[in-house]
Amino acid sequence: MYTFTNDYSEGAHPKILELMTKYNFEQNTGYGLDRHCEKARELIRDWIDMPSADIHFIPGGTQTNLLVVSSFLRPHQCVISADTGHINVHETGAIEATGHKVVTVAGKDGKLTPESIQSAVDSHVGEHMVKPGMVYISNSTELGTIYTKAELKSIRDCCLKNGLLLYMDGARIGAALTSSINDLFIEELARLVDLFYIGGTKNGALFGEALVICRDDLKEDFRYLMKQRAAMPAKGFVMGMQFEVLMRDGLYLELAEHANAMAKEVADIFREKGYGFYAPPCTNQVFPILPDGLARKLMSQFGCQEIARIDERNTCIRFVTSWATRPESIGYLRAYLSGLTA
Amino acid sequence: MYTFTNDYSEGAHPKILELMTKYNFEQNTGYGLDRHCEKARELIRDWIDMPSADIHFIPGGTQTNLLVVSSFLRPHQCVISADTGHINVHETGAIEATGHKVVTVAGKDGKLTPESIQSAVDSHVGEHMVKPGMVYISNSTELGTIYTKAELKSIRDCCLKNGLLLYMDGARIGAALTSSINDLFIEELARLVDLFYIGGTKNGALFGEALVICRDDLKEDFRYLMKQRAAMPAKGFVMGMQFEVLMRDGLYLELAEHANAMAKEVADIFREKGYGFYAPPCTNQVFPILPDGLARKLMSQFGCQEIARIDERNTCIRFVTSWATRPESIGYLRAYLSGLTA
Amino acid sequence: MYTFTNDYSEGAHPKILELMTKYNFEQNTGYGLDRHCEKARELIRDWIDMPSADIHFIPGGTQTNLLVVSSFLRPHQCVISADTGHINVHETGAIEATGHKVVTVAGKDGKLTPESIQSAVDSHVGEHMVKPGMVYISNSTELGTIYTKAELKSIRDCCLKNGLLLYMDGARIGAALTSSINDLFIEELARLVDLFYIGGTKNGALFGEALVICRDDLKEDFRYLMKQRAAMPAKGFVMGMQFEVLMRDGLYLELAEHANAMAKEVADIFREKGYGFYAPPCTNQVFPILPDGLARKLMSQFGCQEIARIDERNTCIRFVTSWATRPESIGYLRAYLSGLTA
Amino acid sequence: MYTFTNDYSEGAHPKILELMTKYNFEQNTGYGLDRHCEKARELIRDWIDMPSADIHFIPGGTQTNLLVVSSFLRPHQCVISADTGHINVHETGAIEATGHKVVTVAGKDGKLTPESIQSAVDSHVGEHMVKPGMVYISNSTELGTIYTKAELKSIRDCCLKNGLLLYMDGARIGAALTSSINDLFIEELARLVDLFYIGGTKNGALFGEALVICRDDLKEDFRYLMKQRAAMPAKGFVMGMQFEVLMRDGLYLELAEHANAMAKEVADIFREKGYGFYAPPCTNQVFPILPDGLARKLMSQFGCQEIARIDERNTCIRFVTSWATRPESIGYLRAYLSGLTA
Repeated sequence: MYTFTNDYSEGAHPKILELMTKYNFEQNTGYGLDRHCEKARELIRDWIDMPSADIHFIPGGTQTNLLVVSSFLRPHQCVISADTGHINVHETGAIEATGHKVVTVAGKDGKLTPESIQSAVDSHVGEHMVKPGMVYISNSTELGTIYTKAELKSIRDCCLKNGLLLYMDGARIGAALTSSINDLFIEELARLVDLFYIGGTKNGALFGEALVICRDDLKEDFRYLMKQRAAMPAKGFVMGMQFEVLMRDGLYLELAEHANAMAKEVADIFREKGYGFYAPPCTNQVFPILPDGLARKLMSQFGCQEIARIDERNTCIRFVTSWATRPESIGYLRAYLSGLTA
Repeated sequence: MYTFTNDYSEGAHPKILELMTKYNFEQNTGYGLDRHCEKARELIRDWIDMPSADIHFIPGGTQTNLLVVSSFLRPHQCVISADTGHINVHETGAIEATGHKVVTVAGKDGKLTPESIQSAVDSHVGEHMVKPGMVYISNSTELGTIYTKAELKSIRDCCLKNGLLLYMDGARIGAALTSSINDLFIEELARLVDLFYIGGTKNGALFGEALVICRDDLKEDFRYLMKQRAAMPAKGFVMGMQFEVLMRDGLYLELAEHANAMAKEVADIFREKGYGFYAPPCTNQVFPILPDGLARKLMSQFGCQEIARIDERNTCIRFVTSWATRPESIGYLRAYLSGLTA
Repeated sequence: MYTFTNDYSEGAHPKILELMTKYNFEQNTGYGLDRHCEKARELIRDWIDMPSADIHFIPGGTQTNLLVVSSFLRPHQCVISADTGHINVHETGAIEATGHKVVTVAGKDGKLTPESIQSAVDSHVGEHMVKPGMVYISNSTELGTIYTKAELKSIRDCCLKNGLLLYMDGARIGAALTSSINDLFIEELARLVDLFYIGGTKNGALFGEALVICRDDLKEDFRYLMKQRAAMPAKGFVMGMQFEVLMRDGLYLELAEHANAMAKEVADIFREKGYGFYAPPCTNQVFPILPDGLARKLMSQFGCQEIARIDERNTCIRFVTSWATRPESIGYLRAYLSGLTA
Repeated sequence: MYTFTNDYSEGAHPKILELMTKYNFEQNTGYGLDRHCEKARELIRDWIDMPSADIHFIPGGTQTNLLVVSSFLRPHQCVISADTGHINVHETGAIEATGHKVVTVAGKDGKLTPESIQSAVDSHVGEHMVKPGMVYISNSTELGTIYTKAELKSIRDCCLKNGLLLYMDGARIGAALTSSINDLFIEELARLVDLFYIGGTKNGALFGEALVICRDDLKEDFRYLMKQRAAMPAKGFVMGMQFEVLMRDGLYLELAEHANAMAKEVADIFREKGYGFYAPPCTNQVFPILPDGLARKLMSQFGCQEIARIDERNTCIRFVTSWATRPESIGYLRAYLSGLTA
């Protein structure tokens, strides 16, 4: 049986394990100051064409998010997020535990707009309310959608106008960049945000996210903050090795492209059957809206999560593909569904 | 060249990489709810002979420490630590960042005593001062020393008398348990503390610590707290696999024993030359006190850290051995030193 | 000119200043352990008919709120509030600064219902989300409305069923208890919540709120928590004296009743002119919906705050009366309005 | 009976109550934006001869301390304090509750020196340790001693050299400035620190401290931070009125001078009897070292606190005088002591 529960069910791309095995007895400096991390940083700087970027490897996404928010906001400042944002919903209050409020606005297919950001800014006036200091967006979003170049530019402008930092959660940035509808190059993206991260965990690594700090004035003392938030593992080189592999020869995008291709087939299966979607499918997450009975069967058979009750008869569930999804698993899903609906 | 900088310079014991490679494409449930974590938990429960223990795998030691302290203390409570304690000195204020004061007392070779704990309790009287709520000890300590059974019992009694939780940082618990002067079995240890962790990172794993919650009333909702502190990685099974390997067939203690044996040889080298030690060597950390010039050379050659200036002419530096230290590296150290002091 | 900006524009009821002057050179024990605080506590316990209640005097409302939320929730727990709740909107993130998320649901005239609380509980499932631990209600609410006995009972039942603490912000509890539509006695109220406070600042005191802890298991070490949050002033007796005066001979309710009576006249003025209200007037806050031009004039003349843009032509503004509002000020408002609309 | 327990046992200087009574029914703007606060600010700016200073009135000293530390440090930064510092000992971990470590060094009669500050800086190296960001001193200190101009200048230089903010807790700044051995003018003091506060609570006010922010780059958004820490009372004008009175016609210093004069008589009594002191008496706190039996009697009779056990036979206790101490109380102490020791 194959599950479509998420994109972190398998281990790592085999090349990663190979490199780790090859260098297993090499002695490395601790805490991310080793040559593998340095090599991976170089490869990332090359990729994003930003030689001045600071790059830090952090074990997980929630950790990166709480670290970024708490490092760059003063105590009275809040971060603005879509209501569906990971930091708002699925981090057990990790942001608030560092002292900051998450101010939410209704997202549009999981995305923020300049208008929604401006409304959050405009409704926070005066010293009795928190002061917006940062905007959090994810790309691809929690609903699998992506930001176009024009959308990201307009958000950037809104942030500049209002003195807000712009931070992009890139847990699934590979899926965004390789979406068939994407028009945003990584070099552009890196110039439109203040900081973002390149997600490893959901795209072929065992764990690890590469935080990219683009803005000079955010760089000072960041390693202190990492250590304080327990985000600086002793064997940082294990993350360095993984990103060294992922960033070589376009492997990172290749893996994401594969996940997207698999997801496209999943979406096609449901589209062909006449089902609609909770959000337009374009990356490795697909959100079909299905009759309750069918939804239940698929959840049971393929480990899908329920996302929302749509109405009295229909439910949205989530299919996630990954770098490790095999075409035959898609074939099995197609066959299973045909058997059910024949 | 081989460094004695620390015990986390190499990767993982080869059997770990083998198991990870073997099961790399197996789909596992996320967040530590997989069968490898479950198997590792069983093996640990068997080892400590405590079927009721709750066991959680947490990526790092600082993270485990801050999680434990912040989960079980009320806001006005503090944790008592030796002045040399890792939580006091080397975690960039991670404990305080969760809101709690670390109250320190002078350690004796890095160890707390019932008297020192009692003095901290007695000097905190009334609502204008923090209230002691937990005692933090490490075993082996930051100075490589270990607690005897009698010492741990007396600390336990002191904690019971004063209503204090007793938490043991076991980053190097393997080294403690396999010390030639140890008289404490793990089953006993687990009954003398309220919670402790079994360190993976410093004893053969890529990362990961196994927190053991012995006391029933500390178990509720702990996974919420892990998630909030970013201590619940998506691919928790990577930690499960590692501890599955380490806990099988006594490998964990075997690795620690090797590290200790290597350290004993290091200590013997210095002892034979007539040098003294900052703390009595008995585990995998050795703290010789050396003439400044010699200390400098060894730091440069073997990557040792300076620990303390002893007087105007002498410096204490630290040698750390690990599961991966080879006898020939010790031989090289011996030869190098003989060359210098011949 | 008289403003209707709020109920904390004037000093204190003259009897308070008299008592303070009388005992000015009496030496009192610090930090709320004096005889005036003790006397005030006795009077409050008598009033609420709860000899076992713990009562603490705290300088301000925001402080009381943040102290209560942070003292009784574990780190992963959240507090549920109406979206209009003071802790959500007007405390500059004071709750989040203690580490806790405020989960909001849409209020109904500023009030929570069991259904809305249940929906918040039901939508927070599993360890990736915060866990509801407390319900925050205010009475009277930020919109001047009050809870009936039946409403409060149903909320209480919902809290019991879901293991939630119930906390009432009583900044304007006097106004609630003396509302003409109130059917809830203070003795009943004190048995339906776990803790609440009796607001002094907005009902005749210079400052100070009396927090009443009804539940035994919340009492331990509370003074430590007060001190930590800077809520235990050196001259606590100044609050004791004030509550001693307010609690004697029914003065507290008398002052609130006066404020309500004045507000009723304000409401009548607008009702007579045919204007509607944002929320049904029943305490000392009145929220008329007025044509923009009129709203602007009244804001300028009487210091009223804008509360909401209702539509393209109408605005809701707020009139607040207090213990110190004189009938002639109402008369002046009536005359002014008649002049404008004649 | 008169107690010498502390300097906050009585109410307020009568002129304060008179002014409060006079303006009791005047309507004032809330939250410290009223004309009394503004007048008090002007008077303070005149006094310190610093027209550009930002001045905020904050209810209490612990609150001012936690607000200052948490507002101006980044999360990984610590504050350096003497071990006897109020923030270290007597605030129930209020500083740590905002996330920051207090790093202590041994004080000399309660005072820091450039050497002790430098040693704290030098021993905190690298990202595994907190980074010193602020120095906390109190003047007069917790032991009643004061800083000379030369001492303060040398601390200032040390702070400049190390990039540390210098903050002075002035709970008893009046006593310091009017000490017979003081050589520091307030205008000079204000130029040697980055921020300090002028204590009201311990020098004639009911409550309230005037925080003076001297440095421009610390001023932004401070009122947000005040509100978040519950340090912006609704009736801020009550503090404004108090400081308006205290700052007029030199009343503030006059009150402190009286307290010092009374304390000098207390010190003389013990000196005449041949007793020594724990720290040299020079302000309104006196710390005689007395035989245990005598110490016990005086504590019982005059409400003095025990400060330290000196040796097996002697105890140090504390006498505090205030603006309200009458000469006859000193006379009574003298007589009582003579009776005992006759």
